[in-house]
Amino acid sequence: MVTDTERPYVIGLDLGGTNAVFGIVDRDANIVAQTSVKTQDYSTAESFVDACVKALQPLIEQVGGIERIYGMGAGAPNANYHTGCIEKAPNLVWAKDRKVPLAGMFSERLGIKVNITNDANAAALGEMEYGCAKGMKDFIVITLGTGVGSGIVANGQLVCGHDGLAGELGHVIMVRENGRPCGCGRKGCLEAYCSATGVARTAREMLEKDSRPSLLRDLKPEEIDSYRVFKAAEAGDELAKEIFDFTGNMLGEACADFTVFSSPEAYIFFGGLCKSGDMLMDPIKKSYEENVMPIYKGKAKFLFSTLDGAGAAVLGAAALGWTV
Amino acid sequence: MVTDTERPYVIGLDLGGTNAVFGIVDRDANIVAQTSVKTQDYSTAESFVDACVKALQPLIEQVGGIERIYGMGAGAPNANYHTGCIEKAPNLVWAKDRKVPLAGMFSERLGIKVNITNDANAAALGEMEYGCAKGMKDFIVITLGTGVGSGIVANGQLVCGHDGLAGELGHVIMVRENGRPCGCGRKGCLEAYCSATGVARTAREMLEKDSRPSLLRDLKPEEIDSYRVFKAAEAGDELAKEIFDFTGNMLGEACADFTVFSSPEAYIFFGGLCKSGDMLMDPIKKSYEENVMPIYKGKAKFLFSTLDGAGAAVLGAAALGWTV
Repeated sequence: MVTDTERPYVIGLDLGGTNAVFGIVDRDANIVAQTSVKTQDYSTAESFVDACVKALQPLIEQVGGIERIYGMGAGAPNANYHTGCIEKAPNLVWAKDRKVPLAGMFSERLGIKVNITNDANAAALGEMEYGCAKGMKDFIVITLGTGVGSGIVANGQLVCGHDGLAGELGHVIMVRENGRPCGCGRKGCLEAYCSATGVARTAREMLEKDSRPSLLRDLKPEEIDSYRVFKAAEAGDELAKEIFDFTGNMLGEACADFTVFSSPEAYIFFGGLCKSGDMLMDPIKKSYEENVMPIYKGKAKFLFSTLDGAGAAVLGAAALGWTV
Repeated sequence: MVTDTERPYVIGLDLGGTNAVFGIVDRDANIVAQTSVKTQDYSTAESFVDACVKALQPLIEQVGGIERIYGMGAGAPNANYHTGCIEKAPNLVWAKDRKVPLAGMFSERLGIKVNITNDANAAALGEMEYGCAKGMKDFIVITLGTGVGSGIVANGQLVCGHDGLAGELGHVIMVRENGRPCGCGRKGCLEAYCSATGVARTAREMLEKDSRPSLLRDLKPEEIDSYRVFKAAEAGDELAKEIFDFTGNMLGEACADFTVFSSPEAYIFFGGLCKSGDMLMDPIKKSYEENVMPIYKGKAKFLFSTLDGAGAAVLGAAALGWTV
C-alpha cells in the first residue's frame, strides 16, 4: 500500500452549475493549489473533462506530479456514489438528459482512483474529516442554498442507500395539503419552503397577504432574496423576522422527524442561508425542542459548519478523495 | 477465539409486556428449546431475572451447558443497545419509572455476553440473519402491532443513533394539524393511525361519520379490532376496505419520506396487522409509488416478514446474540 507520506495530496472537485472548482488538498485541510473551469462552456462531458484535465496539469506538476496524489473526490449534483455517474442533472448542460460516468472519465484521464457523491454528502464527509463533526459517528449535514440538500452519517458512514441516492432530506413532505410546487415535480417538500429561494417566496407571499409596513416593500418582488430578508430582519423589520421564524419553525419540525430516524448527535447547517446566523438558528432550536419526541429532548446539537465558506465544498470533495 | 462449533447456540429473549419468551437457537434458525416467564409476575427486575435464569437452567443443560452458548440477545421495549439498559418502559411494571441494566444483570448471572435492543431492531437483525433481508445491506423493518416500530439497517448495520434510541419511525408526524393524540405525548404520529389500535380507531371514526351499512356496525365500538376490520373487508364490506385504503395510503406516504432518508432496497412489514395481507399491502404499494420522489420510483421492494410468526421475535433476538 502506498502511504500518506508518498501520496500526501488529494484532488477535490466542487462541481456546481456555474463553476467547477478544483483544489489540491493535504491531510491538514490546506488547499495548496486551486483552479476552476466554467461548467457551462462545454456542450459535452468529454470536452468538459478535457478542459478540466488541462487546467489541472500545472497544479499537479506544482505538487510533484500525479504520483504524489492519493485520489480524487468530487461533489456534484445528482452524483451516484455507487455507479460513479452523474444522472440527469438539470443544471448541467452536458448531463441534463443523460448519465455521465464522470468518476470513470477522470480516473482514466488522470490515472488515479476517483469517487463522486452529491454535494451535500461531500459536505458531510468534509465536516467529519476537517470540520465540526470530527469524532462524531452520527450526524446530519443540511445544506441551505438554492435547494435543500443533506448528507447523513450513521455509524461513522455515509448513508447512500441501496441505489446510491439516499439523503435527499430536502424532499420530505412538510405540507401535505396544498403544498408549494417543488422542482422535483411533487408538492409540499421542505426544499420548497426552506431553501434560499423558498425564503424569498415566503417573503413575497407574506408581503402580499399582510398589510403591515416593511422594509421589504421598497424592493421589487424579483429583487427579494434571502439575504435581503435577513438584512431587513437585522434592521428590526417585524415581517422579515416572521419570515425567519416561519422558516426556522419548519426546519425544526423537519429535524424532529429526522431524529426518530437516526438520532444524530448534531445537525450541521451549511450554505448561503447560514449567513443569517441566530436569526435562523434560534427558531430552529426552539421549534425542534418543542416538536421532538420526549426521549430525544435536549440531546441534539445545532451547529453551523465551521469550514471556510469558499473552500468548504472543495474540502468536502477532498475528504471523499481519501476514501478511494 | 471460540468457534461456532464449540459454541453452536445462542439464547434469544423476546421480552413483551405479558410474556418473556426464551429460545435456544442454532446457526440455522432452529429453536432447539423454548421456555417462558410471565413478565408481570415480578415486582422487581432482580426477582424477574432470578425467575428467568431458573427457567433457563434445564434448557441450558439440555444443549450441553452454558459453555456451549455463544451469547444472548434480547428484544425489549425501550431497550438501549449502547447502554444495555431498559429505560422507563411503560408496559413493564419493574421498569416503569427506572433504568434497568438488563444486559448486565443477565450477563452476570449467566456468565455470557448479552446484547439488548428494542423489539423492532431485533426483528430487523432477525430478517437479515434468517429472513427475507438475507444479503441486503439497506432495508427497513416496520412492525405493525399495538404500536408502530421500526428497525433501520444502512450499510449492513443497525442505525442506533448517538444515544442508542434511533429508529422510532412510528413517531414521524403525518398529520400536522389536529392530529390524533399519540402515546408519546404528541399529536399526529404515524403510530396513532397505522398501528393495529390506530386501525380500530379509524374504523370507529369512519363508522360514526359515514352512514353506509357495514358489517362492522354489528359490533360494539370496543369490540372492533384490526382483525375484525380485515375479516369484514375480506367479506366485501366497502367501509372496511376503505379503512385499509386509508391506512395503506398513509403508510405509503410515510415510506416515501423514509426513502429520501436511506433509500432502502426493501420495506419489510412484521406484526399482527400483516395478517391482512394484500388488503393492506396493495394500498401501501400504490400510495408509495404515487408519492415517492421520481428518482426512486419502482425500486423498493415491499415484503412481509418470512420469519415464522410465533418464533420471529425470538429469532430476531437470537440474531443479536451472535453479535455480542
